[in-house]
Amino acid sequence: MSNTKIWTKVDYEQDGKQNGWLQLPHSVTRSAYGNIAIPITVIRNGSGPTVLLMAGNHGDEYEGQIALCKLIRELQPGEIQGRVIVLPAANLPAAMAGVRTSPIDEGNLNRSFPGDADGTPTYAIAHYINTVLYPMADLFQDVHSGGSSLQYLPFASMRVGPDAALNDRALSALRAFGAPIGLVWDHSPDQRLSQVAAIGQGLVALGGEFGGGGAVSRRGVAIVERGLRNVLAHAGVIERSRAEGDFDGPTRLMQVKGRDYYVYAPEAGLFEPAVELGAQVRAGELCGHVHFVDNPGRAPERCCFERDGMVICQRHYGRVERGDCVVHLATPFEG
Amino acid sequence: MSNTKIWTKVDYEQDGKQNGWLQLPHSVTRSAYGNIAIPITVIRNGSGPTVLLMAGNHGDEYEGQIALCKLIRELQPGEIQGRVIVLPAANLPAAMAGVRTSPIDEGNLNRSFPGDADGTPTYAIAHYINTVLYPMADLFQDVHSGGSSLQYLPFASMRVGPDAALNDRALSALRAFGAPIGLVWDHSPDQRLSQVAAIGQGLVALGGEFGGGGAVSRRGVAIVERGLRNVLAHAGVIERSRAEGDFDGPTRLMQVKGRDYYVYAPEAGLFEPAVELGAQVRAGELCGHVHFVDNPGRAPERCCFERDGMVICQRHYGRVERGDCVVHLATPFEG
Amino acid sequence: MSNTKIWTKVDYEQDGKQNGWLQLPHSVTRSAYGNIAIPITVIRNGSGPTVLLMAGNHGDEYEGQIALCKLIRELQPGEIQGRVIVLPAANLPAAMAGVRTSPIDEGNLNRSFPGDADGTPTYAIAHYINTVLYPMADLFQDVHSGGSSLQYLPFASMRVGPDAALNDRALSALRAFGAPIGLVWDHSPDQRLSQVAAIGQGLVALGGEFGGGGAVSRRGVAIVERGLRNVLAHAGVIERSRAEGDFDGPTRLMQVKGRDYYVYAPEAGLFEPAVELGAQVRAGELCGHVHFVDNPGRAPERCCFERDGMVICQRHYGRVERGDCVVHLATPFEG
Amino acid sequence: MSNTKIWTKVDYEQDGKQNGWLQLPHSVTRSAYGNIAIPITVIRNGSGPTVLLMAGNHGDEYEGQIALCKLIRELQPGEIQGRVIVLPAANLPAAMAGVRTSPIDEGNLNRSFPGDADGTPTYAIAHYINTVLYPMADLFQDVHSGGSSLQYLPFASMRVGPDAALNDRALSALRAFGAPIGLVWDHSPDQRLSQVAAIGQGLVALGGEFGGGGAVSRRGVAIVERGLRNVLAHAGVIERSRAEGDFDGPTRLMQVKGRDYYVYAPEAGLFEPAVELGAQVRAGELCGHVHFVDNPGRAPERCCFERDGMVICQRHYGRVERGDCVVHLATPFEG
Amino acid sequence: MSNTKIWTKVDYEQDGKQNGWLQLPHSVTRSAYGNIAIPITVIRNGSGPTVLLMAGNHGDEYEGQIALCKLIRELQPGEIQGRVIVLPAANLPAAMAGVRTSPIDEGNLNRSFPGDADGTPTYAIAHYINTVLYPMADLFQDVHSGGSSLQYLPFASMRVGPDAALNDRALSALRAFGAPIGLVWDHSPDQRLSQVAAIGQGLVALGGEFGGGGAVSRRGVAIVERGLRNVLAHAGVIERSRAEGDFDGPTRLMQVKGRDYYVYAPEAGLFEPAVELGAQVRAGELCGHVHFVDNPGRAPERCCFERDGMVICQRHYGRVERGDCVVHLATPFEG
Amino acid sequence: MSNTKIWTKVDYEQDGKQNGWLQLPHSVTRSAYGNIAIPITVIRNGSGPTVLLMAGNHGDEYEGQIALCKLIRELQPGEIQGRVIVLPAANLPAAMAGVRTSPIDEGNLNRSFPGDADGTPTYAIAHYINTVLYPMADLFQDVHSGGSSLQYLPFASMRVGPDAALNDRALSALRAFGAPIGLVWDHSPDQRLSQVAAIGQGLVALGGEFGGGGAVSRRGVAIVERGLRNVLAHAGVIERSRAEGDFDGPTRLMQVKGRDYYVYAPEAGLFEPAVELGAQVRAGELCGHVHFVDNPGRAPERCCFERDGMVICQRHYGRVERGDCVVHLATPFEG
Repeated sequence: MSNTKIWTKVDYEQDGKQNGWLQLPHSVTRSAYGNIAIPITVIRNGSGPTVLLMAGNHGDEYEGQIALCKLIRELQPGEIQGRVIVLPAANLPAAMAGVRTSPIDEGNLNRSFPGDADGTPTYAIAHYINTVLYPMADLFQDVHSGGSSLQYLPFASMRVGPDAALNDRALSALRAFGAPIGLVWDHSPDQRLSQVAAIGQGLVALGGEFGGGGAVSRRGVAIVERGLRNVLAHAGVIERSRAEGDFDGPTRLMQVKGRDYYVYAPEAGLFEPAVELGAQVRAGELCGHVHFVDNPGRAPERCCFERDGMVICQRHYGRVERGDCVVHLATPFEG
Repeated sequence: MSNTKIWTKVDYEQDGKQNGWLQLPHSVTRSAYGNIAIPITVIRNGSGPTVLLMAGNHGDEYEGQIALCKLIRELQPGEIQGRVIVLPAANLPAAMAGVRTSPIDEGNLNRSFPGDADGTPTYAIAHYINTVLYPMADLFQDVHSGGSSLQYLPFASMRVGPDAALNDRALSALRAFGAPIGLVWDHSPDQRLSQVAAIGQGLVALGGEFGGGGAVSRRGVAIVERGLRNVLAHAGVIERSRAEGDFDGPTRLMQVKGRDYYVYAPEAGLFEPAVELGAQVRAGELCGHVHFVDNPGRAPERCCFERDGMVICQRHYGRVERGDCVVHLATPFEG
Repeated sequence: MSNTKIWTKVDYEQDGKQNGWLQLPHSVTRSAYGNIAIPITVIRNGSGPTVLLMAGNHGDEYEGQIALCKLIRELQPGEIQGRVIVLPAANLPAAMAGVRTSPIDEGNLNRSFPGDADGTPTYAIAHYINTVLYPMADLFQDVHSGGSSLQYLPFASMRVGPDAALNDRALSALRAFGAPIGLVWDHSPDQRLSQVAAIGQGLVALGGEFGGGGAVSRRGVAIVERGLRNVLAHAGVIERSRAEGDFDGPTRLMQVKGRDYYVYAPEAGLFEPAVELGAQVRAGELCGHVHFVDNPGRAPERCCFERDGMVICQRHYGRVERGDCVVHLATPFEG
Repeated sequence: MSNTKIWTKVDYEQDGKQNGWLQLPHSVTRSAYGNIAIPITVIRNGSGPTVLLMAGNHGDEYEGQIALCKLIRELQPGEIQGRVIVLPAANLPAAMAGVRTSPIDEGNLNRSFPGDADGTPTYAIAHYINTVLYPMADLFQDVHSGGSSLQYLPFASMRVGPDAALNDRALSALRAFGAPIGLVWDHSPDQRLSQVAAIGQGLVALGGEFGGGGAVSRRGVAIVERGLRNVLAHAGVIERSRAEGDFDGPTRLMQVKGRDYYVYAPEAGLFEPAVELGAQVRAGELCGHVHFVDNPGRAPERCCFERDGMVICQRHYGRVERGDCVVHLATPFEG
Repeated sequence: MSNTKIWTKVDYEQDGKQNGWLQLPHSVTRSAYGNIAIPITVIRNGSGPTVLLMAGNHGDEYEGQIALCKLIRELQPGEIQGRVIVLPAANLPAAMAGVRTSPIDEGNLNRSFPGDADGTPTYAIAHYINTVLYPMADLFQDVHSGGSSLQYLPFASMRVGPDAALNDRALSALRAFGAPIGLVWDHSPDQRLSQVAAIGQGLVALGGEFGGGGAVSRRGVAIVERGLRNVLAHAGVIERSRAEGDFDGPTRLMQVKGRDYYVYAPEAGLFEPAVELGAQVRAGELCGHVHFVDNPGRAPERCCFERDGMVICQRHYGRVERGDCVVHLATPFEG
Repeated sequence: MSNTKIWTKVDYEQDGKQNGWLQLPHSVTRSAYGNIAIPITVIRNGSGPTVLLMAGNHGDEYEGQIALCKLIRELQPGEIQGRVIVLPAANLPAAMAGVRTSPIDEGNLNRSFPGDADGTPTYAIAHYINTVLYPMADLFQDVHSGGSSLQYLPFASMRVGPDAALNDRALSALRAFGAPIGLVWDHSPDQRLSQVAAIGQGLVALGGEFGGGGAVSRRGVAIVERGLRNVLAHAGVIERSRAEGDFDGPTRLMQVKGRDYYVYAPEAGLFEPAVELGAQVRAGELCGHVHFVDNPGRAPERCCFERDGMVICQRHYGRVERGDCVVHLATPFEG
């Protein structure tokens, strides 16, 4: 049982639709007995699988936040069999501030699992999800985008975990989502992600990146809305007829398998990219230049690709520090 | 004569190319006798007109900064007749921080003209441009983009001033620039802009917005690079053969004529646009919704267009405050 | 005519009730074409006097903000003859942050008159009130309280100006308000106050302090609600029968006439008051002690009253800096 | 033995009165070998019980800080038998800043027990109290008030722990304190409080709330001063004749037993309370309204009580965020 | 007459010694009726000249602050004839924070003359000195040091003004001060200095730099203490016998006459000086290197002297930004 | 094996010289896939001992940073036998900001050992050094200075650890360094230092303080440059002939053995020292005064030495808080 300090008036076992809040006690000067009120919706109808849908893991990734707000208002208990739990703004302080990490504790929720009941708010949220919500769920999807600093070609995704059977089930769910691209992450130097923790508890876990730059992609929202319906149907929570089918064609599976897929800025300055999102590139080709606007007589620094691939992600902001990822690639999925 | 406190080792009357800095004294704890060193380049060859080119008026608008850094390295004195003065990062503290306004004084350089020699750094910069550089120049172009918060369809632009003959000369220069769109601003509630001050001194003044969102548009950089060469040729500073000609066709002239071209957010929240950049819209049509992710049970707020037009500018960031401009329109130029 | 840059869709000449906003352009990184949207309500019915009611001059003074929000919803055009203009949160950024001065420019609106159209937002607000709203108004009331740092016995107030006839009219309006105490300020070392500017334009101007400490006084709200109705009736905008009459008895007139009414902390530390609000004190009596909790072996500093009077105002916060006002007195009005 | 890094020149075993400091090493840019100097006083006379008195657990709660500063100067070794250890400003950085939590690490000392010798300063303080001071003490009182954000009816208090005999001894001490109200906390969702840790080490532990709002209550100071003398007498450290007896009558015992005693703000805005401190209320009655001063046309949100009780605590500040406690109740003690 | 808002209980016309404060009203959230309390001491004995002594113009320059604090306690009315007015911490908020410029408004007092009664606190202080204190004074000395960012060889100084006779009187006073070096500033690109304003009112005005680096130089304090006594004697305020005579020999007069005396950092980085304070250098010699510790493979940038001279001032901090002064020179005084 | 998340392209086993970076993933709003790029250089030639040299443990200590930047460019693989690993700016964010502790997490790297792979950046750096670099090294030197707040007489140093044989080897290396003073730290209340961790892994570990005040000491840089060559020769990595021999004479060994070597400020204020660096003092002598410039009538506080010794370290900044170390002493080494 969880020793979380988060409390809520929402009853996970009750039929119907409840819009409520997770109340995370946060005792500060402006409110000695204050709480951070994180919105949560539970829609339940009898027995059946539980799907946990989450957005706002990073506060500046909006397609999922919007799609889940719409789903919360549109999806009715009578349409489902089982339970849908929705966290449209999981790291609420970050979502309200429109930034990646919480302005309260600088916490990156997706680097905070398995969490800590007595830690700062971001750790306490991770702990609640990990100890209260995951044990209730069968399938979990955490909807991301590139956030303020990155632009992505839209895709749904899964992560390769240690359990081959679970990987197969996730791949099946990924295809069911029906995004134009399905990305298989096979390179995970960090284990503190929401999906890694979910996989560790045996959940089928999906992710996805549906836009970026701190903006709202209309196409990204549309892909998420349709894809979530597809996933709910795939899980057996709604009927197939209520889902909306695939996009323009079958999902194209791709993968990321190592650090050499990533290109990093070699200097601080103003980065001028040499390629567009979606471009096919080869090892050694120019990725971009770093310009020095405070000293324009200084020659720009070049940076190049280390391997072949497709540009699936680009840095959004013009200014870079040394070490910032400016591009990452993907290659066709090889199973 | 200017009472500016800014000093420089650059000699505006010397032939050849000089890369130097405007030194703006800024006496603070970390440097009692410190200066803000704003890069400036002077390229001069004999007599002829003077063209003043500027970017980094807003620090987070990058296409012009990059194009001018390239021009500084590429343009040789032997290629020109007259003088080219280049300020690639006019509000340097803002440009180095990648933000619109100076982190030193929160100054918006384009709301600071005619400036003040004894004011904060942003006012001192405006004052120097207005009292030292404008009097030397015949033609001025200030290269902008939408900055962190706005996305623009790329265009060059001019502002309608009180002198019809000068307006005609600016329109001629605007056509010479050769951007896909040429915008004529005929709505200026604020007179503190760099171009308004330049027009007031009889300069042919151009502007332009070539991207936005705090990113670098490769197409925007290309349009600026070509357009500046065209303008230099139009001014007689370089030979026509060194310019690169128009884009895919003649410039399409458009205009902005009133406050009803602008749509503002009616509430604070997360804005989901209902249209794309470039769309043709009609008065009364839906512009977008404001969602409330902290309280998803609350119905979104709608906002609509007040007149017909083309969406030439959209807010980039997802989060809005009441009063933020979310879209502005343009209509065909009517002379 | 005003050269303000503030614009609004509210039409001051139109009959009926309009809830709208004053849009103050504020161009910053997060919103290049942003506005600070300050709420304003105009209720008009035919010809008659104009009463301008304002709260939120200081953001952390709430009784007036609440009373005006209620009045906006309750007062109907059919009830009035003439015009009521209501600014319930004049320095909106301060009001939303719950602080005295604007978090944008640290501006104290009540030290910013006559304002500046090109100044920071607080100055621009003062300028709009002074050049657009005052010329339309006959009577002005600016509802204050002690704010975060002071606690007041509730009173309505007026300031003695250079025009004796106008002073008489203000005194008459002050009696009409019907607060338990009516204070006559006859000590004004600072001329940048909203009421000083209003008096300078010939308006009958009232003020008042109805609570403090950054809290909401239920009694203060009730006094303001009743008093404003009384003032509207006194001005002839509503019928006397719609007002609610005096409080428990006639207003007791008091005055503040000099700097010796004020007691200031002699040292930084923790202030323990020796008297209560409302106490009658004599010159030389103990006002309080400053304790040194970081060094409790050090003897506390005493501070004493310099003259006789009633304690009408006390510092709310325990911590003081040298120079903070810890008490001020009032004495019976001597006309 | 404690591995604390805090050191002091005070000798806990020495007779007489020593005013000194706990030196907490804090190595920062402005002081590489700096210490946070937390005041401590030890008054000892021969053998006998040890009473540990503490205030400034939260920096903005002043009645205890003042009462303990006075006690430190007034209480003489010859008056006592045993030892009194006084920490008048336990979280000194918070006390000097006049805020609840430390400005150094945002630490809330009363959510930091049992502490951490290698943690941030707030954790290091908790660790010292827990590992050095508690083992020396028989009785502990931690004097609180509502702090900046809450107003309390004054009371002394105890917490129900797992040891019934210890609870009985605490109840006896609570009655001895002689406050007008004695509150028994029987609802503790958080175990990181100073008193919970003290109880865990077998100390008789008292608390109490004697004012609030970030102000100094003269009546609160008086209650604390008298009560502490009563407790010292009850513990046998001073003679009964040096204590000052009960207040206006015997202590009225009350209790808090569950989350439904608390009312939370349902929205962010400006809260207008509908009741006064001390009021008797019933489930379903109106507790207050949240007003929207940025948009006064929007109807206020209501919030209501969930159970019967007496209003023993109210939010002080006018502005609220969703989730802030606006009221909590108490009910008669049922043993 | 001055329209200052600063008030004080000090009476400039009263005989004896008064230690008091200039009270500068500063109305902020933490103190609505607060004042910044700037210490001032007036020592007067009958008629005679008035000497105004000031330190803490920059908050992080300490030799003068200490010497004036000592003088305030030591100098007795009976020792003097005339009047001594002492401002030991003129920009008090900066002095208490140990920084050059005021933390309240970032104001550099020595770039704020002639000041502004309605400006921010730093401007209001300059205005008071300029309109109230200067008109009372005959001789003014403003004691500086290099502050946090610069190290000086200690010297007293004067500035060449437009009035030759006044220059002669200042030079005479400079010699009387008796510092090892007497510097004549004959290069003043900025007119907003305290001494320029004093000269403009016909005062004999001295300055001086007596250490630096944000530290306290024991030798600097000693030079100031002795020199001020010498100046008071020179002015006829104290008897010559109470002054302490020259230092190790007669004052060596030097001058600064142009911008080429200054060397500025050519890049941001870590500056390694190539010379020591006091060194004699020649044009073209190496002044130092800028190292790049984030990228040590990059070759350091060199910077060199532009003219001959003695190193009288060096940058203290290791880190530099482009444009920071790293050295300035002085040359023998040529009259 | 280390579970660090830091990665690098540098190959520790490769012969030759590699200048590269340790990439520490730091996922924040401005860079979702960002890294802190900490410079590292590996110079290797065949087999032999490994010497690990580090500076920038504290960001504002510059002599070591400069000396190591020079060594990186000067030392060639052909000169050495074995391996030299150089971290010239170990806590890079602090070094670039010129402050002691990291501006990212306020982390003091020298209070963060043994580190934490999942902790904030400063802990992650300590963890990498402790788990990856120490196991490769035989000898470690961490080059310090007094930083912004302290001034030191220059010395190399070692710490007394639990292993007498290792202490002997360190003392031998300390003598080999050849600084004017060699300090033996025999008082270590904190175990979280880089050298304590290194000693715990059996490394010969040296330190040293070569200047201070946030400045660059030319003499300090020279001592470090020569000393490091001497140490490399002592370790057998370079030939003795490439080192530069001792300074003006043999190293004078001194020690620090207890808390009474340190003097702390008794109050907050402005500290005037009574002694110079290098002075011999006796217990009871005056160390300095704390002045109160906001209230110069208040008598200064004295503080005195508690024991005899030589002043080897003094506080640099004039302003002090209670508890700041203002001086520490050393005494002749007694073995």
